[in-house]
Amino acid sequence: MTVSIGLLGAGRIGKTHAKAVSQLESAKLAAVYDPFEEAAKEIAAQTGARIDSLDAIMNDPAIDAVIIATPTDLHAEQIEQAARAGKAIFCEKPIHLDGDRVRDCLKVVEETDAKLMVGFNRRFDPNFAEVKRQIEAGAVGEVELVQITSRDPSPPPAEYAARSGGLFKDMMIHDFDMARFLLGEEVVDISAMGSSIVDPAIGEAGDVDTATVMLKTASGKIAVITNSRRATYGYDQRVEVHGSKGLVSAENKRTTTVTVANENGYTAEPLMDFFMERYVDAYRIELETFVKALTEGTAMSPSGIDGLKALELAETATTEVAKARETAKA
Amino acid sequence: MTVSIGLLGAGRIGKTHAKAVSQLESAKLAAVYDPFEEAAKEIAAQTGARIDSLDAIMNDPAIDAVIIATPTDLHAEQIEQAARAGKAIFCEKPIHLDGDRVRDCLKVVEETDAKLMVGFNRRFDPNFAEVKRQIEAGAVGEVELVQITSRDPSPPPAEYAARSGGLFKDMMIHDFDMARFLLGEEVVDISAMGSSIVDPAIGEAGDVDTATVMLKTASGKIAVITNSRRATYGYDQRVEVHGSKGLVSAENKRTTTVTVANENGYTAEPLMDFFMERYVDAYRIELETFVKALTEGTAMSPSGIDGLKALELAETATTEVAKARETAKA
Amino acid sequence: MTVSIGLLGAGRIGKTHAKAVSQLESAKLAAVYDPFEEAAKEIAAQTGARIDSLDAIMNDPAIDAVIIATPTDLHAEQIEQAARAGKAIFCEKPIHLDGDRVRDCLKVVEETDAKLMVGFNRRFDPNFAEVKRQIEAGAVGEVELVQITSRDPSPPPAEYAARSGGLFKDMMIHDFDMARFLLGEEVVDISAMGSSIVDPAIGEAGDVDTATVMLKTASGKIAVITNSRRATYGYDQRVEVHGSKGLVSAENKRTTTVTVANENGYTAEPLMDFFMERYVDAYRIELETFVKALTEGTAMSPSGIDGLKALELAETATTEVAKARETAKA
Amino acid sequence: MTVSIGLLGAGRIGKTHAKAVSQLESAKLAAVYDPFEEAAKEIAAQTGARIDSLDAIMNDPAIDAVIIATPTDLHAEQIEQAARAGKAIFCEKPIHLDGDRVRDCLKVVEETDAKLMVGFNRRFDPNFAEVKRQIEAGAVGEVELVQITSRDPSPPPAEYAARSGGLFKDMMIHDFDMARFLLGEEVVDISAMGSSIVDPAIGEAGDVDTATVMLKTASGKIAVITNSRRATYGYDQRVEVHGSKGLVSAENKRTTTVTVANENGYTAEPLMDFFMERYVDAYRIELETFVKALTEGTAMSPSGIDGLKALELAETATTEVAKARETAKA
Repeated sequence: MTVSIGLLGAGRIGKTHAKAVSQLESAKLAAVYDPFEEAAKEIAAQTGARIDSLDAIMNDPAIDAVIIATPTDLHAEQIEQAARAGKAIFCEKPIHLDGDRVRDCLKVVEETDAKLMVGFNRRFDPNFAEVKRQIEAGAVGEVELVQITSRDPSPPPAEYAARSGGLFKDMMIHDFDMARFLLGEEVVDISAMGSSIVDPAIGEAGDVDTATVMLKTASGKIAVITNSRRATYGYDQRVEVHGSKGLVSAENKRTTTVTVANENGYTAEPLMDFFMERYVDAYRIELETFVKALTEGTAMSPSGIDGLKALELAETATTEVAKARETAKA
Repeated sequence: MTVSIGLLGAGRIGKTHAKAVSQLESAKLAAVYDPFEEAAKEIAAQTGARIDSLDAIMNDPAIDAVIIATPTDLHAEQIEQAARAGKAIFCEKPIHLDGDRVRDCLKVVEETDAKLMVGFNRRFDPNFAEVKRQIEAGAVGEVELVQITSRDPSPPPAEYAARSGGLFKDMMIHDFDMARFLLGEEVVDISAMGSSIVDPAIGEAGDVDTATVMLKTASGKIAVITNSRRATYGYDQRVEVHGSKGLVSAENKRTTTVTVANENGYTAEPLMDFFMERYVDAYRIELETFVKALTEGTAMSPSGIDGLKALELAETATTEVAKARETAKA
Repeated sequence: MTVSIGLLGAGRIGKTHAKAVSQLESAKLAAVYDPFEEAAKEIAAQTGARIDSLDAIMNDPAIDAVIIATPTDLHAEQIEQAARAGKAIFCEKPIHLDGDRVRDCLKVVEETDAKLMVGFNRRFDPNFAEVKRQIEAGAVGEVELVQITSRDPSPPPAEYAARSGGLFKDMMIHDFDMARFLLGEEVVDISAMGSSIVDPAIGEAGDVDTATVMLKTASGKIAVITNSRRATYGYDQRVEVHGSKGLVSAENKRTTTVTVANENGYTAEPLMDFFMERYVDAYRIELETFVKALTEGTAMSPSGIDGLKALELAETATTEVAKARETAKA
Repeated sequence: MTVSIGLLGAGRIGKTHAKAVSQLESAKLAAVYDPFEEAAKEIAAQTGARIDSLDAIMNDPAIDAVIIATPTDLHAEQIEQAARAGKAIFCEKPIHLDGDRVRDCLKVVEETDAKLMVGFNRRFDPNFAEVKRQIEAGAVGEVELVQITSRDPSPPPAEYAARSGGLFKDMMIHDFDMARFLLGEEVVDISAMGSSIVDPAIGEAGDVDTATVMLKTASGKIAVITNSRRATYGYDQRVEVHGSKGLVSAENKRTTTVTVANENGYTAEPLMDFFMERYVDAYRIELETFVKALTEGTAMSPSGIDGLKALELAETATTEVAKARETAKA
């Protein structure tokens, strides 16, 4: 079976997915849609996909699946349309910034029995995937404490920070998913702290740029997440999982293994710059996994529920930090 | 000037301090007191110190300073006695498990104008001291986020856990001091989580064995501390300080730099077993610093106030976690 | 300009080059030749290249360049044929196992003014290329001492060892080229040692499996190479370049950055298995460089002379070690 | 039994040994001799040893052992005097710069049945000692290839280089001993290369400052040593031992584990400056081992024969490199 795929959205991440599909033997990119036609043309030229309208793609019975890589506020609606059209769906995270809207959308998914996978790409990073494999293989025994460090190289414009739903929904949502993935249990308790010390404009826009969260499961496992919008030394992405038998950890990736030593010491290069470089393998493997689940008829993971759970944690953290800011002002 | 020192308490940590004093040219151990005379005899034999009673040492005008290495519940009382006797005082942490008692004790110290240094030995660890030096030299700009990982190799007996004042006062108190040391500002907000998942008996004794804390200063700097009573790979002691210009971090120490590589991978030895090995340099430098401050007439640091501040954070964390446990039970 | 390429040889390395060409915008694989047609068919199917005979490819005026990935004993002859046919040539190393035959071949290349690049892929490995860039940027000052460690994961069959020309021509030839590349000067003195201690059958076949060489340039720079056909922990490929101002080194690559720690210590995974994984980027960049040199009309590097120089060092080392074995037997 | 020791030579290394003895319960420093009395006085003050003449120490029946830390050209003579006086002897390396003189000296040692240990301190470095333990425990199977990197931070004055016997006898002699220690077999073949590229004055004085040596045992095991008088990043001291089952290696030591990361990358501090810091533990353990061998009546190791074997390798390397220089000039 060759999966025939329609791509919605031909921006940066859409291009990444188009390239991943073009490298798969069991899938082909049949059509691409983007209101900005130049972007669509570029992908069409590279992959041989036709350019088409959103509705035409949704209604084409020859198309098995859609990849939703459009702006966030269109995700839920397009998931619903695709679900009703009987398409399998790969959707970039988040499904929506509002939890209620996500719940409504997932009801449609459930009613139509649609297959939905949400793009938490980091689960497919070879390093974090290996950490998960080690946990499952029993290398650390029972998981006790998860530590996630996640830092962007530099802050986004303050107006983006506001529009994005805030740090917890825009950035830490990946780490909430990673925490659930590594803990292997649902979170029942959460506590958050945040500051705007990297860029005051972000604080004025009502968001934070430095934040930490503690999570706890019913059995007492704990996770700690730290986020910052600043890391002068590159995109910092690490996890540690401590268990009853030991520790498994994934360090950052670098482009080379070169070190220069002199009277000032030993210097290794900074980390990769950002997610398009750091997670290039993850994006590819993610799409492979989606296509494989389709051709083999296995369950989609991460699922719509995974998307919802991470968002709910982000909503709680957002509210808690907002309250603390109000209190501090009062 | 040679500082003449009386040692109160000839247990494990007393011996460590006695050895540190014996290596200093500017100090000598004049007398040692311990109700268990065999312990005192051993130190006397090694250092030439006389064995004497507590009161005799306190009242000997030839003795300039005392080192208090007795059980915790005696510290406050002995500090007061020494302060009134005009001695300079080095006291093992904590001053007392009860904050009110510490405040009363520090009043006596203040009234008598006594010199008091509290034994937060980790400030003198060459690694953490270098982190502090780098911060002060501006290597990371303004401090934004401090991450402290501190794990004991294995849990103490549950009865110790109860008697010790609990994880926050017994173990994390060191990390509270380290957080204050590295943040360079007072903490104004704290949030704690704890679990007893390493040893259920510790939970039954009313304590936790796995805990995390988030701290915040008035200017918005954040610190995160994680503690566990279990680390199969050795005594895990690390700090990271993220600032506006970069990151300074201190990794764990090992006894050797040897690696064995074979078809299973590359294996380095486990970490040092526990604090007497890991902080052997710190204990020595701590005493050197105390004696140097005495001979040079400079301020004592860490001070009694430092001891109080760390205890207050531990008390707040203890209360918060206890409340959460009550709520969970209800 | 789009470079039209004919591929001679559709084995493992031929496939690697075909894939590299298919990813380039400025080149296309026009034709593929292999006496074993199934292999050629596979590449044809993947790239759209036609299957053709050797002579047809050589004589097709629409083909600009050939990639020679046939067995070693055919290289020299095919280089000559291609040179006379006016093709640019990318040839896998070595040009021939016999130095005289190489010199004859290079005469034809010179007379026909053909463009020839020899496949010393390691120069294009991002790690070693970065080492070279650092040297050229002056990071280590004047180069003084180069150390190259190169170990295969496991020995080839003894019959291969014999047929391949021996360790120095088959394996260390890469390191001879790397040494010349990093020294930046010609070697004027060489001394070699070899043993067959990994597999006695290799010794019986007249070859060695463990060998070291010292090289020296006219200005006194020194290089040391160590080779072994055994490395249980994976394919070991490292360089160190010591200069008047410091050291630049490239460590091994791993698939992940994951470490597992427990009471036995900290374990990282073994190295990548062998050259097809380790040098996957190098093979791609090598072909890019060949095509770029063609389209931009710049000089080919590494050149035929580079191929000859490395072979001459290998011949000298082979002779020296063979003599030492004779002496030892006598 | 408390071993009563006389120290000959109160220079830098003499002081190190005096301190090591003073920390041992089973030994005491009874007397110290140095023609420069100020130096002797300092040690006497610190240890309680008496100051005495060479002959008085040699003839004092209460003295069990002597430590010879005098200038190299006095070692052989003093070993003989001590051997005849029935003392156990710890002698700094080398016994003499001339192999014949060493052989004569060892004859006296043999005839008098004297106990003699030679100060190859690096065998007692905890890192290299652990490498040896791993080999003996079978961690790497049969040893196949040893790689030793040894670089001084900066060159000595050219006049020292000349007087010292040259790089091979002064510096690489430690590595010859280490190679024998790790190979576990006698060397039967040696090849050397050297250059004076760090400091031309060293070349004019007839010595080299950069050198490499290959060694081979009868069974085919190989060792490679690289030496340089320059390492801007600190005192570089590493070994790798490759065997049939894997690799055991010892990396350099640093004073702290601190790293600073910023837009220029991750920087760790330079290495320790030189041998007095790097081998501080080794010097202490070496003396402990000497005293332990005395009190327990076990064999001395490294022995006088070990001293001779390393010197013979150094002599051969010196000759070979001198010949090559002559040839190059001619």
